[in-house]
Amino acid sequence: MKLDEVQTHLSKVEAIFLDQMKNTASFRLKESMEYSFLAGGKRIRPLLLLSLYADLTGKIEDKAITVATALEMIHTYSLIHDDLPAMDNDDYRRGQYSNHKQFDEATAILAGDALLTDAFVVLAKSPIDSALKIRLVEELASTAGSNGMVAGQMEDMLGEEKHLSLQELQKIHREKTGRLFVFACQAAAQLADKDDYLAQKLGEHLGIAFQIRDDILDVTASFESLGKTIGKDAATEKSTYVQCFGLEGAKEKLKEQIQEAKETLAQLTNERGATWEIIERIEKVN
Amino acid sequence: MKLDEVQTHLSKVEAIFLDQMKNTASFRLKESMEYSFLAGGKRIRPLLLLSLYADLTGKIEDKAITVATALEMIHTYSLIHDDLPAMDNDDYRRGQYSNHKQFDEATAILAGDALLTDAFVVLAKSPIDSALKIRLVEELASTAGSNGMVAGQMEDMLGEEKHLSLQELQKIHREKTGRLFVFACQAAAQLADKDDYLAQKLGEHLGIAFQIRDDILDVTASFESLGKTIGKDAATEKSTYVQCFGLEGAKEKLKEQIQEAKETLAQLTNERGATWEIIERIEKVN
Repeated sequence: MKLDEVQTHLSKVEAIFLDQMKNTASFRLKESMEYSFLAGGKRIRPLLLLSLYADLTGKIEDKAITVATALEMIHTYSLIHDDLPAMDNDDYRRGQYSNHKQFDEATAILAGDALLTDAFVVLAKSPIDSALKIRLVEELASTAGSNGMVAGQMEDMLGEEKHLSLQELQKIHREKTGRLFVFACQAAAQLADKDDYLAQKLGEHLGIAFQIRDDILDVTASFESLGKTIGKDAATEKSTYVQCFGLEGAKEKLKEQIQEAKETLAQLTNERGATWEIIERIEKVN
Repeated sequence: MKLDEVQTHLSKVEAIFLDQMKNTASFRLKESMEYSFLAGGKRIRPLLLLSLYADLTGKIEDKAITVATALEMIHTYSLIHDDLPAMDNDDYRRGQYSNHKQFDEATAILAGDALLTDAFVVLAKSPIDSALKIRLVEELASTAGSNGMVAGQMEDMLGEEKHLSLQELQKIHREKTGRLFVFACQAAAQLADKDDYLAQKLGEHLGIAFQIRDDILDVTASFESLGKTIGKDAATEKSTYVQCFGLEGAKEKLKEQIQEAKETLAQLTNERGATWEIIERIEKVN
């Protein structure tokens, strides 16, 4: 399947989210959750899940779309909380005011809390058999919780004013960014009833590649193309791939990860479909 | 079973929590999560779940203790976030500094996020058959999310500077406090394989009773006995049962809910056991 076709299914991700929002018992909370979720962004995580599922099965089904929705809700909550004044203190996100600037801090904290919690409602209601569903709940929660994304954000903040070794930097990236990419690939493989070891490996390479790309864009992109504050890493003296290896060195590292990702994908499927196109999209930083 | 005996099982709630904490990938995050969870408090929600389960089955089993742990983790996260400067701005909780005073705001936000997320890891790993476990995941997430507790906290904050009608006040309490009590009772009944309609009703009455008691204690208790700032509702002109009905009126309302709770419990079980003792504990505000 072509990435263009996979992308047409993103509207269903928004539809499942909006359907869940019908139950929200506070108008302001609903408004704030929808503000951030519907701002869009690249939707790279749900796209990756759906693309790999399509490449492995030849189709896109509701069960995959539902898991992709839960994953994007978790990602959106993490952006809202990361942007808070007490955290990265970012005023812009996805080309618009960040949630706490548009609303206020309390609302942003609660909108994040609710997106995180409701992701598990969406997942629990998905049309997947109970045993696999429980496995996905456990994996998504492990991915996002104190052994994954939240730990990565905590260590990222603690590392801001010190010089991190490459090893420390990679550990943070693996938890903060990599784990959600791994979940996207693993969930696709599990839903498609395929071995998930290679899928995990694919997710790991793509997670690192995506993070290096992010570090590169922070110094090369414009606010208009990125939709968020640029040059922030340098301003906060944050350890990044660019700071560790220089711009050209970081581009080289990106190339290596992309190569590994392509080789891993080739072992998973002969299809040069949507997942391949996503890899090529991450590859382009100019 | 006597409440004293049920209470001996609370150490297992802490043991399950600490076992989950072994996987935490950030030392500071772990420290902060444990600081708030192990501060104790009344543990009324897990006690209620375990007591009702014991009264319905004559025993306490690991599956009930695991669900009780997940529930208390969700409750603890909500306290950490509610205490934040942008929310209720409370410096004390459970007789010690609130999380953001002991650590900092970013750490407190992340500790709350991780407790909420990890609660679903604990639940997903619990020794319960998959179909019931998925039901519990859905109910716990619905209880805590945008259709429940988070919505209640949002509306509670919006209501702080205006005079709420009794109906609005009750709606907020139902979401913010009541829903977790309902979950405790319903989960106990479902785990015991009993009809959960009466359990739901019991939880509703106990949730309202507990909230009225809280409103009363805010004006009558001392800091030492409560472990948190007192007189706060009056200072922020918050709508409370005491403000709506006066102190004596609120005590009367509490009595009514306690009476309803006792009658509902009597329909569920002949046992005058631990659950009965919990009701009597909530009844006493002096």
